[in-house]
Amino acid sequence: MIDITLPDGSVRQFEAGATGYDVAASISEGLARNALAVRVDGEVRDLHRPIDQSSNLEILTWNDAGGKMAFWHSSAHLLAEALEALYPGVKLGIGPAIENGFYYDIDLGEGRTISTDDFPAIEKKMLELAKQKSRFECRPVPKAEAVAYFTEKDDPYKLDLIDRLEDGSITFYQQGNFVDLCRGPHLPDTSPIKAVKLLNVAGAYWRGDEKNKQLTRIYGITFPKAKELTEYLEKLEEAKRRDHRKLGKELELFAFSEKVGAGLPLWLPKGTALRERLEQFLRKAQIKSGYLPVVTPHIGSKELYVTSGHYEKYGADSFQPIKTPNPGEEFFLKPMNCPHHCEIYKTKPRSYRDLPLRLAEFGTVYRYEQSGELHGLTRVRGFTQDDAHIFCRPDQVKDEFKKVIDLVLYVFRALGFEDYTAQISLRDPENKTKYIGSDENWALAESAIQEAATEKGLPTVTEYGEAAFYGPKLDFMVRDALGRKWQLGTIQVDYNLPERFDLEYVAPDNSRQRPVMLHRAPFGSLERFVAVLIEHCAGNFPLWLAPEQFAVLPISEKYQEYAQQVYDRLQGEELRGSIDNRDEKIGRKIRDAEISKVPYMLIVGEKEQENGQVSVRRHGEGDVGSLPVEEFIAKFQAEVAALIK
Amino acid sequence: MIDITLPDGSVRQFEAGATGYDVAASISEGLARNALAVRVDGEVRDLHRPIDQSSNLEILTWNDAGGKMAFWHSSAHLLAEALEALYPGVKLGIGPAIENGFYYDIDLGEGRTISTDDFPAIEKKMLELAKQKSRFECRPVPKAEAVAYFTEKDDPYKLDLIDRLEDGSITFYQQGNFVDLCRGPHLPDTSPIKAVKLLNVAGAYWRGDEKNKQLTRIYGITFPKAKELTEYLEKLEEAKRRDHRKLGKELELFAFSEKVGAGLPLWLPKGTALRERLEQFLRKAQIKSGYLPVVTPHIGSKELYVTSGHYEKYGADSFQPIKTPNPGEEFFLKPMNCPHHCEIYKTKPRSYRDLPLRLAEFGTVYRYEQSGELHGLTRVRGFTQDDAHIFCRPDQVKDEFKKVIDLVLYVFRALGFEDYTAQISLRDPENKTKYIGSDENWALAESAIQEAATEKGLPTVTEYGEAAFYGPKLDFMVRDALGRKWQLGTIQVDYNLPERFDLEYVAPDNSRQRPVMLHRAPFGSLERFVAVLIEHCAGNFPLWLAPEQFAVLPISEKYQEYAQQVYDRLQGEELRGSIDNRDEKIGRKIRDAEISKVPYMLIVGEKEQENGQVSVRRHGEGDVGSLPVEEFIAKFQAEVAALIK
Repeated sequence: MIDITLPDGSVRQFEAGATGYDVAASISEGLARNALAVRVDGEVRDLHRPIDQSSNLEILTWNDAGGKMAFWHSSAHLLAEALEALYPGVKLGIGPAIENGFYYDIDLGEGRTISTDDFPAIEKKMLELAKQKSRFECRPVPKAEAVAYFTEKDDPYKLDLIDRLEDGSITFYQQGNFVDLCRGPHLPDTSPIKAVKLLNVAGAYWRGDEKNKQLTRIYGITFPKAKELTEYLEKLEEAKRRDHRKLGKELELFAFSEKVGAGLPLWLPKGTALRERLEQFLRKAQIKSGYLPVVTPHIGSKELYVTSGHYEKYGADSFQPIKTPNPGEEFFLKPMNCPHHCEIYKTKPRSYRDLPLRLAEFGTVYRYEQSGELHGLTRVRGFTQDDAHIFCRPDQVKDEFKKVIDLVLYVFRALGFEDYTAQISLRDPENKTKYIGSDENWALAESAIQEAATEKGLPTVTEYGEAAFYGPKLDFMVRDALGRKWQLGTIQVDYNLPERFDLEYVAPDNSRQRPVMLHRAPFGSLERFVAVLIEHCAGNFPLWLAPEQFAVLPISEKYQEYAQQVYDRLQGEELRGSIDNRDEKIGRKIRDAEISKVPYMLIVGEKEQENGQVSVRRHGEGDVGSLPVEEFIAKFQAEVAALIK
Repeated sequence: MIDITLPDGSVRQFEAGATGYDVAASISEGLARNALAVRVDGEVRDLHRPIDQSSNLEILTWNDAGGKMAFWHSSAHLLAEALEALYPGVKLGIGPAIENGFYYDIDLGEGRTISTDDFPAIEKKMLELAKQKSRFECRPVPKAEAVAYFTEKDDPYKLDLIDRLEDGSITFYQQGNFVDLCRGPHLPDTSPIKAVKLLNVAGAYWRGDEKNKQLTRIYGITFPKAKELTEYLEKLEEAKRRDHRKLGKELELFAFSEKVGAGLPLWLPKGTALRERLEQFLRKAQIKSGYLPVVTPHIGSKELYVTSGHYEKYGADSFQPIKTPNPGEEFFLKPMNCPHHCEIYKTKPRSYRDLPLRLAEFGTVYRYEQSGELHGLTRVRGFTQDDAHIFCRPDQVKDEFKKVIDLVLYVFRALGFEDYTAQISLRDPENKTKYIGSDENWALAESAIQEAATEKGLPTVTEYGEAAFYGPKLDFMVRDALGRKWQLGTIQVDYNLPERFDLEYVAPDNSRQRPVMLHRAPFGSLERFVAVLIEHCAGNFPLWLAPEQFAVLPISEKYQEYAQQVYDRLQGEELRGSIDNRDEKIGRKIRDAEISKVPYMLIVGEKEQENGQVSVRRHGEGDVGSLPVEEFIAKFQAEVAALIK
């Protein structure tokens, strides 16, 4: 008998060799029906694989990431099976599950191609095969047999894969007539795959190396219910509608110019206003939290980066040095602001009483990205970090972490990101030698981060071995309105730069001590943050941030004077807006204001003029009723104050 | 008889051959006594040179720039005479008058040097020679005779100079036994030179070419009265005290780091706060005037600068291109913001109704300066322009000029620069071919500038032939508290870039037209402006701009709570300040606050606490009396409002 410990802590006894399915069935028939795979002592396995010893066990369904991975991995095999049926002789590369769906890399052979036009036929075949309810059977295969099988099949890719595997570690999975080299895990059978959609076809070099042959990569996604597929496709469409590149153009926020250079955004007037408001908002919050803004140049000499250690990492894939008429003199576009801030720290002697010193800069940095990797504002070659470096004593790390967490959460909430988590990245406790800094300081910083996160009630996951070599860190992830995860803010402890720059402070006992340095950026980069924000709110920015907060819409020319009075009154309270004095019907004016996403439309006609009111319409919500102008202002200001202090 | 027209327009008749001195004597004895030289039809000449024909004439005294130039030019000869007497065999280079005084470049011969220790003896000799009242005699000399004279004297520098002169154009000037190759003009004799001070000794290559021999340059200044010398030296001392490099360090505004690179300022927290307030002040004023802020990257691709024409001007003396992993791809640090703004103009079609389009950016640009030319914040390698480009129709140029003049004068007044003039630089009417743009547009723009300046009551001088090849311009000069002139703001018309970037707008008749572009910057560069401002106000910034506007000074610990209340109340009104809660005597607190140039010290003790008052002390002025806190706030705000809207 073995003990099976379930996630709720309860323990059930089974005979050795029982399967995940047996456990599920012992809990409920529904769970057994929905079970896709099982996690045993942390490892995801086939539901029907016998369990030999006492373990922690979790039944995985469609609602678990591990369940989805098995589902999509099996779907990749199903795609391959369909392709073998439809394209005899097709050679197969790899076919993994990915974050949303799966792909398979294939070699169709000379002269054959696949386009999206071919997708319906392949999808149809996949569904047909899925209905056969073929079991995914796993069996260990000796290396020689594996080689013989794929030699017979004349598949060079699988042979290349096998070549790298140890004899004894090789397994085949088979469903129906289709056999694949695979480690699993898989679904029990093909039947749960009820909805199939192939999404995309692209080129991909074998093993990601451009010296190898380019294969055809087919992306797809599958679901246990047709309705879920429909919802997913709708979300994809919505994501396209919200694409920040599309909205950025429509709302005239930013542009790119080939002449200026790919990946180097030009911020247009409306985008600049938005960006400056974001900066101003954060600047204010930071100054309140004791940060000191500084400004440093966008280049630094070679010596600076030799000291910081960046120099040795500049490779052929970076922006190259800027030479000058002075032989041997070289400057670099700055890839980070920290070396400059270290030099500011060094401009005068610091005492323990001066710490923490928090230097903040909206610093624009430049990093060369391959042109194929550039993407709107999320992947650029020049971007502005809302950067700051906190120089503090080791005993101040926890307090500083708590303050940064407060600031980051304040920013998230003000911008409508309500769904966030954090990842704490700590040292690999098994391999401490690859990290710099003393054990004592690491222990202090790691517990400081964990305690700070706990005290602030931050939902976290902790990853061991994910710390940088120079210190532990905490990364914030937000989930946007479409459920997509984005890594935004970060707080990083650094023992390295203070050492390299020989930073010091005078301790109470007059000894010279090394400060700890924290890097932190709530937005990460302004460019990326604006991109995420645009997609999150679909261009309907939070009221305090909206480029245009109100539009006064006079019903006719007769009310233009009153409209102007209303406008002037609102502008006097620093509300941003416009008057639509065009010779258009009011319906048209409203429609145009709705399209340009103005949060408040203020319609004025005879009745409003008589009563000193405005007829208020909220974007996307419709009529809110008539209000005296002063009441509207109060309502407006309360709405803003609920988001930002 | 000849007609001599005086500056007041009156005409006097003299016999041909009369001198400036005769004219002066005919006006008044005093004028004749003070006359140093004379300007005849625009040319400065010796006072005693005969005048052969009817002319416009102006008597030059010490109060005229031309009079000073003659005075200092003659003083340079006096220095040379003294050096020949004290250092026999000295060889002489050139000895011109400069803006403040004069210098002479000399070759002392192998093994001999001069240091400031030797100055008193030389000054004494100069005064001794001046007292001899030697006349400056001018005589034309045939080239052969000139060569013979300086060959005899074995002076290679004078021979080098003569070598480049036409026979018939050579004159010698002699005072006492000293003869110099010289075009003049000079004083009648040495006697007006009553006060002498040698200032400095430096190395200078012959003809400014580092391939030539390095000579010794001795700088000096002279005055007609000892008192004027004393005042001048006091002003020099004051300038040293106000040196922005010294004050910048003391007030912790900015710093330089060798590792970051020479000429690349690091703005420290206090300097950044100052800079951001300046930016914010101008940003507000600009937005009010219809400017649209934009943000563009600090680099641009080669193609951008090929289009703008900057590429062909990048030489070996510039920052070199930034190469990338992509062969042939090159970026440049941006030397100007205009090409980027042209690309923003091009992001969508523009109509005549969209103009003027005013794009503003606090754009940081990088230009390589020789390290020897770097100087604090006035000569740097990276600086931020308060840049804007106005794209307008030709008929809008005048109006836009007027608006820019308003803005520039608003800025000057807010910052305490009351003494300013402007230079209008127009085309050389004799040589129109070297300019681009149509005659019609030039005429329009030139008269627009002149009319705008006149209508705005701007004191101007007009210089023909000083326009850039691409358009006329207007430069603002301010005189600082020490009487020094600085070129700050500029407005430049540009017909070139719209052409090169093929900028267009759709005119009312649907034809495509070229906009005119105006470049303008009220500060010029933030770095240079801050430097000038620091020296102008000696670190006592205008109240609205001061880093710390008030300091609350409790008389003792007992009043700390009340001090905090006062502080909170002021901070609530967005006044910037601090509380001095140190355990120090009030006298010490006041002294320290005076040193750090805090405009308002608010002393609080028992009486103030009882009455809800503060005892107000103004920096540099002393006690202002006690006021209720609210009254102080009102007084403070009125003082700020008098400077900025």
